[in-house]
Amino acid sequence: MSHDFFKIISRVDFEALLNSFESVGTKRVSISDAFGLVLGEDIISPEDLPPANRSCMDGYAVNARDAFGATEGNPAYLECSATLKVDENPEFELQPGECAAIPTGGTLPEGADAVVMVEHTQELGSGTIEIRKSSAPGEHIMLKGEDVTKGDTVFQAGHKVRFQDVGLLAALGIKDVTIYRQPRVGIISTGDELVEIDSPQKVGTIRDVNSHTLRCLVNEAGAKAVNYGIVGDKLDKLMATLTQAIAENDLVLLSGGSSVGMRDLTVQAIESMEDSEILAHGVAISPGKPTILGRVGTKPVMGLPGQVTSVQVVMLALVVPFIRHLMSEKDAFSGTDRMQVQAELGRNTVSKPGREDYVRMKLSHREGLLPLAEPVYGKSGLLKTMIKAYGLMIIPADTEGFYAGDTVSIWKI
Amino acid sequence: MSHDFFKIISRVDFEALLNSFESVGTKRVSISDAFGLVLGEDIISPEDLPPANRSCMDGYAVNARDAFGATEGNPAYLECSATLKVDENPEFELQPGECAAIPTGGTLPEGADAVVMVEHTQELGSGTIEIRKSSAPGEHIMLKGEDVTKGDTVFQAGHKVRFQDVGLLAALGIKDVTIYRQPRVGIISTGDELVEIDSPQKVGTIRDVNSHTLRCLVNEAGAKAVNYGIVGDKLDKLMATLTQAIAENDLVLLSGGSSVGMRDLTVQAIESMEDSEILAHGVAISPGKPTILGRVGTKPVMGLPGQVTSVQVVMLALVVPFIRHLMSEKDAFSGTDRMQVQAELGRNTVSKPGREDYVRMKLSHREGLLPLAEPVYGKSGLLKTMIKAYGLMIIPADTEGFYAGDTVSIWKI
Repeated sequence: MSHDFFKIISRVDFEALLNSFESVGTKRVSISDAFGLVLGEDIISPEDLPPANRSCMDGYAVNARDAFGATEGNPAYLECSATLKVDENPEFELQPGECAAIPTGGTLPEGADAVVMVEHTQELGSGTIEIRKSSAPGEHIMLKGEDVTKGDTVFQAGHKVRFQDVGLLAALGIKDVTIYRQPRVGIISTGDELVEIDSPQKVGTIRDVNSHTLRCLVNEAGAKAVNYGIVGDKLDKLMATLTQAIAENDLVLLSGGSSVGMRDLTVQAIESMEDSEILAHGVAISPGKPTILGRVGTKPVMGLPGQVTSVQVVMLALVVPFIRHLMSEKDAFSGTDRMQVQAELGRNTVSKPGREDYVRMKLSHREGLLPLAEPVYGKSGLLKTMIKAYGLMIIPADTEGFYAGDTVSIWKI
Repeated sequence: MSHDFFKIISRVDFEALLNSFESVGTKRVSISDAFGLVLGEDIISPEDLPPANRSCMDGYAVNARDAFGATEGNPAYLECSATLKVDENPEFELQPGECAAIPTGGTLPEGADAVVMVEHTQELGSGTIEIRKSSAPGEHIMLKGEDVTKGDTVFQAGHKVRFQDVGLLAALGIKDVTIYRQPRVGIISTGDELVEIDSPQKVGTIRDVNSHTLRCLVNEAGAKAVNYGIVGDKLDKLMATLTQAIAENDLVLLSGGSSVGMRDLTVQAIESMEDSEILAHGVAISPGKPTILGRVGTKPVMGLPGQVTSVQVVMLALVVPFIRHLMSEKDAFSGTDRMQVQAELGRNTVSKPGREDYVRMKLSHREGLLPLAEPVYGKSGLLKTMIKAYGLMIIPADTEGFYAGDTVSIWKI
């Protein structure tokens, strides 16, 4: 078993396996809670928006024909027949030669088809209004149904809800929607050397860093992290915790097990579960090669590298996109949802062909030029290499590296 | 008062006013809760990390001198004197000619200064290990204090905590830190025409869209939104709600009041409060000109445009950066925290000099080329113009526009 370590597949093949897991179920939530989540239903507009012709300005509702051609030098004169309130439904019809004072958002009376802004008018007293600017039908008004027509599909299932979408749903009187719920992600740390972070420093122990970084990244991705603490290297204990975590979550992440022995134990624990299989023993990315993908029933289980920096890269490269996929997000693996910065590469950076490299990069600001990006040096296991990094530069598997002077894309981390 | 509407200041001057408000106070939180927030203290490392020399690989701890020059054809032979466990503090000294089996993360014994990977060794039985690769001092080990030295300032006050920073704090045994707390932001909707979103459609009423979009954007910025519902156009009612909201929050946002009358009422309400002043009556951005900034005591109050799309732009352009400033974030107004996409402008897009324009843009993907960006057409008050937009293109106040073919930056929304 131990040499399965070396059976690794490409990042693309690994993603295809991740992609084969079904997204989690849907549920009904308020539109505020739907923000950032993916719709599980088409949204059909139940009504016209706006429900009637509405003014976009403070001014006078007119029949545009009555103000056509009006100028400062040759104004039109109209009789003001009403002063409308913003929440009024006018139940009269504007007659030729008449206008009605109307506030922004107010509903136009029958017979009016435009609004003249108050700035272009003058009240002359005894109800006469001087109109100093020409008007055209539809000007400064929003027509009934112009924003949304009753029966329109405003959003399709699969759409990720943005703040402006919440606004449109509110405008249509839609209070709740069906979304793909947030996955629960169980996090288990493994390793006899691990202790809680409030343990005093002691040679031979290592504080459990991964539970904390994984929790941040899982929650930031929109899922709900559930921590199961630290499990040592006993198979029965690991299986008991894994069984519970699988029952209670949509995805289980095991971290630790960076030694061959601990990795074997993780594989053994997964394989010992009923209806389980190991789908991948590794992935051709660096860092992050010793990443295991398994299945228990329909649920995914991932064995992540124990090294504190490798696991952070695997989270960004594979697990965060996978969580988005579980939430039914389209193009979850395209990387387009991550902030990217263009930079000029400061030195030649080589990579072994056949594996995808995630190089930690620091960035220097330069006035009027692209920022300069340079690799962060230091042993890859040092936490400070991630601390000093602004982001990651991806060198694809079919590339041997980039040259100094190349324009490269840096993933902000 | 009503013509203060037209006393507007530049976006830069408006930001300078926002910048003059002090950030909210600090508090102690767990490191997981500190994620995304700004440190209110310098973090000094209480210890060396790692606390002793540690192996980065599964293999054998050696004195590099004993394996120097070893090759497959000319291996070295060492006696294995111990098999170390990962959580063991070895209390012996490695003698010349000896090695010790060590797992990843294990602590090196005295006398060992390198690790040879297990792949480059062969166990020959009766404790003899064949070493097939040369070694050098420091190889495959992490030296005591190499990641962090005791007494180092690992982060300075003002640093925004990233996931990898949470990891380093965990590794150092730091459980709680002082951060600038999340501001509470009170949201008040004003306008007689407004009704709750579950009200049935009725001509003359408008559902309260802004409370919902503001809540999303406030929470996304890292603050805590508190909704105070809808207030009509009565001064006493508005003052009562404003008094309560100011007492309970760090920032109060009033939205609505798009008509001149409603804006006057907002100004009047702010000015009627004790120790208050109006700092700005408008800002030279479009949309978003009728944005009011006031102060009550030390607390900021903003009167936002009532128009549902304008208020969304003002939130992105001014309020979200202001919230980041209140959380003590450096460069809060630089816009660098927002995702930007480079695109080719599809058509000439003009702007009135003297105001900064935020143009809604749609984006078309093109294989192998920058995406094509084109303005979204339609009356600016239509919600669908924001729905169809991928993002916003900013045309600076000193520019008259951009030409078709220009490479432009689009803020994703």
